[in-house]
Amino acid sequence: MSVKTAKAVEKVLNRAKNILVTSHQDPDGDSVGSQMALIAYLVKKKKKVAAFNQGKMPNKYRFLDPKGIIQEAAEPLPDLVPDAAFVVECPSLRRIGCVQKLLRPETVIVNIDHHPRNEKFGKVNWLDSKASAVGEMIYDFLAAARFKITPAVAEALYTAILTDTGRFRYSSTHPRTLEICSHLMKLGANPQKITEEVYYRISPSDLRLVARVLEGMELHHGNQICFLSIDNRTLAETGARFEDTEGIVDYSLFLREVQVGALFKELTPGKTKVSLRSQNGIDISPIAKSFGGGGHPNASGCALSLSLAEAKRTVLEKVSELLQNGRLAGR
Amino acid sequence: MSVKTAKAVEKVLNRAKNILVTSHQDPDGDSVGSQMALIAYLVKKKKKVAAFNQGKMPNKYRFLDPKGIIQEAAEPLPDLVPDAAFVVECPSLRRIGCVQKLLRPETVIVNIDHHPRNEKFGKVNWLDSKASAVGEMIYDFLAAARFKITPAVAEALYTAILTDTGRFRYSSTHPRTLEICSHLMKLGANPQKITEEVYYRISPSDLRLVARVLEGMELHHGNQICFLSIDNRTLAETGARFEDTEGIVDYSLFLREVQVGALFKELTPGKTKVSLRSQNGIDISPIAKSFGGGGHPNASGCALSLSLAEAKRTVLEKVSELLQNGRLAGR
Repeated sequence: MSVKTAKAVEKVLNRAKNILVTSHQDPDGDSVGSQMALIAYLVKKKKKVAAFNQGKMPNKYRFLDPKGIIQEAAEPLPDLVPDAAFVVECPSLRRIGCVQKLLRPETVIVNIDHHPRNEKFGKVNWLDSKASAVGEMIYDFLAAARFKITPAVAEALYTAILTDTGRFRYSSTHPRTLEICSHLMKLGANPQKITEEVYYRISPSDLRLVARVLEGMELHHGNQICFLSIDNRTLAETGARFEDTEGIVDYSLFLREVQVGALFKELTPGKTKVSLRSQNGIDISPIAKSFGGGGHPNASGCALSLSLAEAKRTVLEKVSELLQNGRLAGR
Repeated sequence: MSVKTAKAVEKVLNRAKNILVTSHQDPDGDSVGSQMALIAYLVKKKKKVAAFNQGKMPNKYRFLDPKGIIQEAAEPLPDLVPDAAFVVECPSLRRIGCVQKLLRPETVIVNIDHHPRNEKFGKVNWLDSKASAVGEMIYDFLAAARFKITPAVAEALYTAILTDTGRFRYSSTHPRTLEICSHLMKLGANPQKITEEVYYRISPSDLRLVARVLEGMELHHGNQICFLSIDNRTLAETGARFEDTEGIVDYSLFLREVQVGALFKELTPGKTKVSLRSQNGIDISPIAKSFGGGGHPNASGCALSLSLAEAKRTVLEKVSELLQNGRLAGR
């Protein structure tokens, strides 16, 4: 964080009393953990904080917010007049979804993000594409601000980093990432508790869903593409809940030769949500973007106004093309 | 590592020329990684090193040993005359299986282990039950010996620690564990490469096996016990290999309420291998021990001369009893 950015954030904080904290729709570990840590800091600074996200909080992250401070934004939206809005982990303001309606013309936006292509939609744009997670940025900020990191905040930040690095797997994991997590452990983060809350508190119905999804796995392009899918019938039959299906896409990259994985989730019979994953330097974000979505080079998403089968066919074409071109380019 | 132990190891090294390196049967990440790091050191010290393990090297650890230095011990065993044997990660000498036959009366045994109950079978017993992995002990040793850790050795040690902490999950994960891994990254260990080699190089047949195993999941004792099983028929039908089924037991602890998980593998129609896992402070090692096996409080194993169904019935009885008593004791 540059001195200039730190000063700009400080200036906003000096003027703002009512602060809205938000993040992208469909909360994940980094968005929830970073927001909770930020909220703890803002509350300590005597700010009046409201936190709204579009989409339900996944069960696995509820332990970070036992009091339910982060609320689901739903119509009718409350009548807030935020002086400032801290928007975390969003490459564009659209990503906060309906929470945009809570912004006023006078609301000063502080944009805190680590995506490589951020639209710089804030008055203050605090961007660090080298950070493994926004949680890492918040850690730096709190350390610089000499904020006493409590065990709960340490837990929130550890969760943010753990989940956004795919359990210290992605190339975004740097030596410093582990150093920060080591320090967060000393401050009270318990890796066993956190890892189990996030990855090992699956319900029997979710595990049954995983079994069903794996059985229906489709391999294409010489095993380089792995498609998984969840239709509403399977969801109903297994008793799993939509918002707890987030992690299942990871299974699409479990296989040896797979370069691109995807999870197709039926939203309605004519609408399909697609989560894309890639490895070995393949950038799948242009595909998500071409369908009106976005994300990271290795983890993107979009929603298609197509049936599950049509969505798969359409995305398969694009991904095959990408791999074909990638191979021609000598990858 | 105490000064006394360091000196004792040094004394052995000064006298020995031919050194046998070994570990428990059925190699795992810590045993392979620790052995490879140790071998690199011994070779640098101009020792003649032979490494034998009972059981096949799992595919996922082959990247640590591209030249196949660690050999599978099989009859007829070679005619070695080791001056010393470095035995890593074994609570008892029995755990090296048929490699015991390679030991001579004059072979000096150096026992390097982190199990809490080690039988101290060595001339030198270098034990540290607080170490998250033997890899952590070897790291300390190499650092103290001012051995220049190469990228390959850093990779081996990172793998040892990563796998024996269950990806930084178990309570054995200390702040220092992450600090060491951060340092190993600086020395050339690539967490993305390692994590993917170990956890994400599954073959389609193995993933099909996972789907089948999860479908056959059995929950007992109010969802507190989760049993998974693999019979030879399922193995044959999915095309998976026995030695690549090691990690599947982890799925038994994925569920929210599960305290004890187990994977039952049919060796022959009348013989079953059982891998036991537990969490929340429950010690399942006495159960494994009562059947002639052993291990850690949270990860133990044994083999029963019973059919799959009989083995499950027998172990279920013991585990139910354990949970019953645990509950009575106020857990």
